[in-house]
Amino acid sequence: MSDTPVRRFGLVIGIRQECIDEYRSVHNGPGVRDLLTDAGIRNFNIFLQQLPDGEYYEFAYYEYVGNDYETDMTALNAHPRNREWLALCDPMQVPLPGQQSWIEMEQIYFNP
Amino acid sequence: MSDTPVRRFGLVIGIRQECIDEYRSVHNGPGVRDLLTDAGIRNFNIFLQQLPDGEYYEFAYYEYVGNDYETDMTALNAHPRNREWLALCDPMQVPLPGQQSWIEMEQIYFNP
Repeated sequence: MSDTPVRRFGLVIGIRQECIDEYRSVHNGPGVRDLLTDAGIRNFNIFLQQLPDGEYYEFAYYEYVGNDYETDMTALNAHPRNREWLALCDPMQVPLPGQQSWIEMEQIYFNP
Repeated sequence: MSDTPVRRFGLVIGIRQECIDEYRSVHNGPGVRDLLTDAGIRNFNIFLQQLPDGEYYEFAYYEYVGNDYETDMTALNAHPRNREWLALCDPMQVPLPGQQSWIEMEQIYFNP
């Protein structure tokens, strides 16, 4: 899509334990996979883990291969199908305190 | 290295807050980057985040492109330089309860 270097993102959010099965189920479907690809997002992984506080968390890793992340994310967030998708997923998730959604973590190591 | 499909891993471990600066510093150096590459590990990312319990956690994402993960990891873990590296890093880290080191998280979503 461009000669811009790939950007790598790690994000985290909580998930309500009682919603995990449904979350898995909707994520096995097509969902917004095509919209993510159109937005320049590649290699999107979500991992699930219970942490010592007893709560469940999701950790996402993805790469952005476009050349204008903010514009692409704004367009993605405004897409009617993505808004439906978020309306489905948001109630299952628990943003970290003070956050509205997934929070970007700080990358402290990278080895190609 | 092989025609085996890439395997994607997400792992988590705690980190002592007072060790974060030193952890960053040693991870900026060469460390065991060459050994990871020799072991078939690619695209190794570590992200840092404080969670609502007040503790700091590290989340790792990497890909394995070889064709015998267990053998490659056994060789990596036995390498003298990797043992030195772990002896340096392990005291800075706090494995999850009941774990000896990083724990592998469950992958619940992947979109290429």
